[in-house]
Formats: sequence, C-alpha cells, structure tokens
Amino acid sequence: MDSKRRGRRGFLKGGAAVAGLAVGAIGTAGARPAAPDANSDQRLKDLIAYGERSHYVTSIRKPMVGEPSPDQFGLTRHILTPLQDSVGNITPSSLFFIGDHRGVFFPDIDPKEHRLLIHGMVDRPLEFTMEELRRFPSVSRVHFVECLGNHSKPEYKTVQETHGLTSCAEWTGVPLSLLLKECGVQSGASWVVAEGAEEVKGAGSIRLAKAMDDCLVAYGQNGEPLRPQQGFPLRLIVPGFEGIYNTKWLRRIKVVDRYYMTYNDYGHITKEPKVAALVFQWGPKSVITFPSGGQQLAGPGFYQISGLAWSGGGAVRKVEVSTDGGQTWKDAEIRGTAHPMAHTRFGMDWKWNGEECVLQSRCTDELGQVQPTRAELAKFFNVSPEHYNTHRTPGTDNTIQPWRVASDGSVHNAI
Amino acid sequence: MDSKRRGRRGFLKGGAAVAGLAVGAIGTAGARPAAPDANSDQRLKDLIAYGERSHYVTSIRKPMVGEPSPDQFGLTRHILTPLQDSVGNITPSSLFFIGDHRGVFFPDIDPKEHRLLIHGMVDRPLEFTMEELRRFPSVSRVHFVECLGNHSKPEYKTVQETHGLTSCAEWTGVPLSLLLKECGVQSGASWVVAEGAEEVKGAGSIRLAKAMDDCLVAYGQNGEPLRPQQGFPLRLIVPGFEGIYNTKWLRRIKVVDRYYMTYNDYGHITKEPKVAALVFQWGPKSVITFPSGGQQLAGPGFYQISGLAWSGGGAVRKVEVSTDGGQTWKDAEIRGTAHPMAHTRFGMDWKWNGEECVLQSRCTDELGQVQPTRAELAKFFNVSPEHYNTHRTPGTDNTIQPWRVASDGSVHNAI
Repeated sequence: MDSKRRGRRGFLKGGAAVAGLAVGAIGTAGARPAAPDANSDQRLKDLIAYGERSHYVTSIRKPMVGEPSPDQFGLTRHILTPLQDSVGNITPSSLFFIGDHRGVFFPDIDPKEHRLLIHGMVDRPLEFTMEELRRFPSVSRVHFVECLGNHSKPEYKTVQETHGLTSCAEWTGVPLSLLLKECGVQSGASWVVAEGAEEVKGAGSIRLAKAMDDCLVAYGQNGEPLRPQQGFPLRLIVPGFEGIYNTKWLRRIKVVDRYYMTYNDYGHITKEPKVAALVFQWGPKSVITFPSGGQQLAGPGFYQISGLAWSGGGAVRKVEVSTDGGQTWKDAEIRGTAHPMAHTRFGMDWKWNGEECVLQSRCTDELGQVQPTRAELAKFFNVSPEHYNTHRTPGTDNTIQPWRVASDGSVHNAI
Repeated sequence: MDSKRRGRRGFLKGGAAVAGLAVGAIGTAGARPAAPDANSDQRLKDLIAYGERSHYVTSIRKPMVGEPSPDQFGLTRHILTPLQDSVGNITPSSLFFIGDHRGVFFPDIDPKEHRLLIHGMVDRPLEFTMEELRRFPSVSRVHFVECLGNHSKPEYKTVQETHGLTSCAEWTGVPLSLLLKECGVQSGASWVVAEGAEEVKGAGSIRLAKAMDDCLVAYGQNGEPLRPQQGFPLRLIVPGFEGIYNTKWLRRIKVVDRYYMTYNDYGHITKEPKVAALVFQWGPKSVITFPSGGQQLAGPGFYQISGLAWSGGGAVRKVEVSTDGGQTWKDAEIRGTAHPMAHTRFGMDWKWNGEECVLQSRCTDELGQVQPTRAELAKFFNVSPEHYNTHRTPGTDNTIQPWRVASDGSVHNAI
C-alpha cells in the first residue's frame, strides 16, 4: 500500500531502480501504461510549468470509421471526441473533435502576423491585428460545436463513433456585431462570408441577422488561446449552427447582399423546403454516454444513466429517458448549467434488473422543439427508417440514439 | 505570406529542409519558440489522439517568489497560475495553481486501487471504489479554489505573483451529502475530517453543516478526470472555502463531534473573534488582470480593462472599477456567467489619456459583502496599512489590489 502512494519525490529519491520496483508493485495485471520518467529534473520542471493528465488516463480521439489512418491523410478528416469518457459539460481542449476538408491538418499561424479583414458592403473596411481585437469588449460563453457529419449508423459501435463530432467549450471573444458596427454595415447587406486562412481558404455564408445576434470572433477556448486544431489564433463561433460555419483560422469577413457559394458548401442551399428547414441550425439533440455502445455493465444493480443534451435553438429545457425502448419516458435531472446552445449534462438513477432493454434519451429545448426518433423523421420524408442507416439524414441528424443492453451487460448500438 | 499559412501537411511534404526554411520565413526577430517536429508520423498521431496548444503560446506556471526552484523542493510548494494571460472564467487544467505542504509533489495513484472510506459517527461505515462512486448521481459545477497563501506584497511584480494561487474549474462529482446519508450520520456529529492519500495524509476539518450543504467528492475537472496535481483520482471540493480544505487524493472522511486539529492546520482556530470571522470562507475578491503589473501599454488610447471577481459567499453581484486611485468608481460589465463561488470575468471600456493613474477593482457578492481596501482592514485591526506589506492579513486576504500605470505605459504593483 505504501508503494502505491509513493510520490514523485519518492521516485526522485529512489532513482530508477526503485521507481521500477514501484511500478511493478502498483501495476494491475495487463495493459498498465508506463509511468512517466519522474527521475528527470527537466520533466519535473515541465510538469510544474504546464501540467499533464495522469498516465492512468488514456482516453483519446480517433479518426472516423472508414477514414484513412492519421498518417495517410486524404482531403477529408474527422477526428472523434471520446464522449464515452466525458464528465460534465466542457470538452477538454485536447479532446475537442476536429473536422477538416482542407488538405492540411492545421496551419501554423504566428498570431503577431495574423490579421482579420472586414470588408464588402461596409462604410469603413478595417483590418485588425490580434492585439487590436483584444481592445474590444469581450464575452465568454459556453457553446457546443457539432459537425454535420455526426450521424449514427448500425456499424458504428460506440458513442464516440456515432456522436463524437460534437464538443463544447467556453469561448472568449469579441461579439461580431461590435466589429461590424465599427465598420458600418451598409443598407442592402444581408449575408456575411467568413473565410479561413488555411490552404484552401475555407469559407461559409451566414445571414447578417445571425451575425448581428450572437456570433463571436473568438480567440479564447477554455481559458487559454484557441488550440491550433480549433482555429488558432481566431475562429468564428456561430452558436447552434453546423460546425462548418464556425470558420477556423478566421482571416476575412465579407459583408454581401446574397448567399455566396463557397468551398465549404455541402448542399446547404436546396429548393426542397422540408430539407431547407433542417440546415444551418441544429435541432434539439441528446445522447446517453453511459451506458453506451461498447461499454459493459458488471451485473444487475444500481447505475447512473448519464448523457449530454444540446440544441441549436437555445437552452435545454428538459431531457427524458426511456429504459423500455420508448414505451415510457421519465424526466432526467439536469446536472450542470443549461447554457444556451451548450452541452448540458443530464443523469437519472437506474436499477438494472439484468434483462435485455433499450435505453434512449429525448431532448426538449426552450423553444419547445422535441428531438425526433429516426422513424418519425423517415415518416416525415416518406422513406423507410432503415433508409437512414445507409443514407445521411436531410440536414443535421438530431434523431434519438437507442442503446441495447444485452442480458450479459454488454451495450450495443440499436439504431 | 504563403509560407505563413503552410500547414502541417506542407511541412510533411517538404521534409526537414523546407520546414526549416518556413520557420525562418515566419519567425519574428527574437525569441520565437521552435516549431514542433511535424515531420514525425508518430508526432502527428499523438496530436490527433490528444491535442496540444500552439507553440506560439508559452504561458506557464511558476513557483512563488522566494520559494526554491522546482528541482530543489522543500516541504512547502506554491505554484502560481499565470492570471495575466487568462481569458474567460475557466483555468486550463494544465495551468491550475498548486499548493502543497506535503513532502511530495503528487502521489501516483492507480484509480483501480483507490478507495474512499467514510467512518466515525455513522451507522454504516462504507468504503467506495471509484467505480462505485460513479454509480451515484453526480453534478457538475464551476467553482474557484484559492489558497490562503494568496497575498499581495510590494515586492510582487505581476498578478501571477500577487494572485496566482487562485484558479477555477468545472468540477464533476458526487454531492458529499449523498454519501454521508448513505452511511447514516449519527446524532451529535458536528464536523467531518477529510484526509488525503499522500505521504503525510494531509487532512482538514469542516463543519457538518457545510459538508451537507454543497461539498462535492469530485472525480472530474474540466471534462476529464482530475489532474494528478489537483488530487487524481478524487478530491473534496468545499465551495468558497480556503484551498487547503479542498482535500486532494481524498481517501477518508471521518464524521466526528468536534473540530480535529490536523496536519493541514495553520491556525484556523483562534480565540480572537475578529480573526475567527475571517477564516474558512473567502470574502468577496477581485483583481484586474489587464492591465496588471509587469504589462506594458503601447500608448494612450482605448483599452479593455479585464479582470476576475469571486466570493466564497456566493455569486458575484457587482464589480466596480476605479481608474483614479479610488476617488470614483464605475460599474464594470460581467462578461461571463456569474456562477456561485466561481471566477467571474468582468470588463470595462477605458480610454487612457497617457497620464499616471491607479487602477483598482471592487467586488460585491450576492450577500451584499463588499471587498475592502487594505487601509480599511488595517483600521479595523488597528494597525498601519503598511503592516500587511510584511505580515499576512488575518485569515484570507481579499483586499483591493491597486495597479499603477506610469506615464510611459508600464504597470506596477501599488499595494
């Protein structure tokens, strides 16, 4: 027992031989990760300067099923957040999902050299340095970002695979409305086009009304500068909208009088009104993260069902959970702060009797919008529910995710 | 310009020689940090699994002034958060302050082996594994933790040195009240003693009423498991109380009928009622993080004054800022969510006219408590204000921090 509680100082005193012994003594059989090299003064200095997680914590992101391995990158990459290991509402920046269609993993931008240009239908086109942006009033808000690619298929086994393209952070930045007012938006303007600084200059068009409402030109993420994979040094946050509108490595905003087709478009303009209603903004959505696909219950007994709910339409007002395949629903508890357009942790006491069952969650947002089942969506579009096992849903997929708990305690995707 | 936007893929294609060239092209004169070795497939895989901050971001923690350097550790260590670089309300876990009086930097605990024992005046003493604790309902809340050692002295130059022993995180865990109820607290019990698993078994006593109110047995920090330096795998969160009561590496909670003197006591029991009123819980507090000591204004013009406010007594209700040495005060804006017992970002527009001035902030919490000046505190205790330049304040130090902006734009500690 004493060796288990040996500290870093103990390692330092004892040197390599003792450290090796301690590792043997505290190791559990099997795949225990190697202890960090605590014998190095430099290592200790580094850990004081900027800490790290425990070597016992091994949760990692991984590429989307079917995409090439990281060292064989193609044009499109989706890197999934391990939601099955998540606690609370915030996604650690190191585990925040990545979506890229840009031929580069992330540009290496010197913030001293970076500029944001606002131009187009404005009275005064202005170019801002990072230092100048910091002279504007800033706000900090918690918001999710979710990629359109988040879509559950039967062959996806875990919640990381079905839902790992959503993450949530505290973003700090300047309200876009302030910068636009500084430039003076001209009458007749109705859209803004935001463009990134990466190789392909990925861009997206959003309505001026949204730009003036709640968008942020963000330079902070979870209390420190944006991470490179999330747009360092500057990104647009478009609360509640599809991920791709949250332009990373933001370098230009053009004020225009119409929708601009851009590199980042994936059929966001459609003449089909039923589909058009489902693009841009995420509907109410939720998913159970425990128990979820690939996890294993130890046996019958008392558990906490835990999950995340969110909506592009505002704050989460209610989450219901069904443990009987959708026959009955019970209100879950909100176990964090229900910020607007933010991941919101919910939980529910659950006593598992050991029999096979199907778990589902259903989100209602502050607008009263209710998360649909895939069957309901299919009926609306007059296709079979199985259609969406092989085809994308129209617009964003916010359908209910069922998890089947088998009588042996194993948990499976039941979409 | 093109080289500036070269991506990681560009580096990979070009190999070391081109990467070297690119570094030259984008470097600013002086101390630009080395680019990461993007040419390694393993490095890229690591960055996908668990991301890192930009190599342009170099903000780090450092030991308290006067304490030995990290490789020459004594018994007491205080590692300070770089608040001057902070944005928003959350402190990145890698930059969260560390306070230790324990002879070890942090124990290396296998969570599978860790146990929490609740014993003493309870009907059913119980020992919990981490897996068992996760079966209890959890909550996620944003709270600051601040060490009693946070005390401004004239020789401290920066806000990291004067205030770097406070940090804020989203904590996830089980309400302590639930666990105590599970064990059945006996009548006559009035205190609980929480003990850590480190070498010296540091412990602290808190009143049962506080334990049953809002304390958390926390296993999550900012969306992932607690960091080792913050108590992995388990710590007590005692919202609003001095840091040392937030027992790290929590292994035992004993329910008792009196205050227990412990290793972690630094005179928390006192017969002097004026002093006794100032222990345990932090009063309303705030500090300006920009402009703050050691920073440099480029010249007269428009700036954002930015800072953090918090209180052990509840949510921040108001923050006022003075730019004239305390003669006049103006309400600042709250620029994040004012969670109870949590860092709360405030800001205020400010046009600096280029003349010497003194900046201060003053917090009022939801109880109506107002942050005092050091002169007010000194008057109350009938000493000279300069007394506290060399002596600790009684109890926790929540006095107003003045920063002097010199006419050359340099900023100095004016305590």
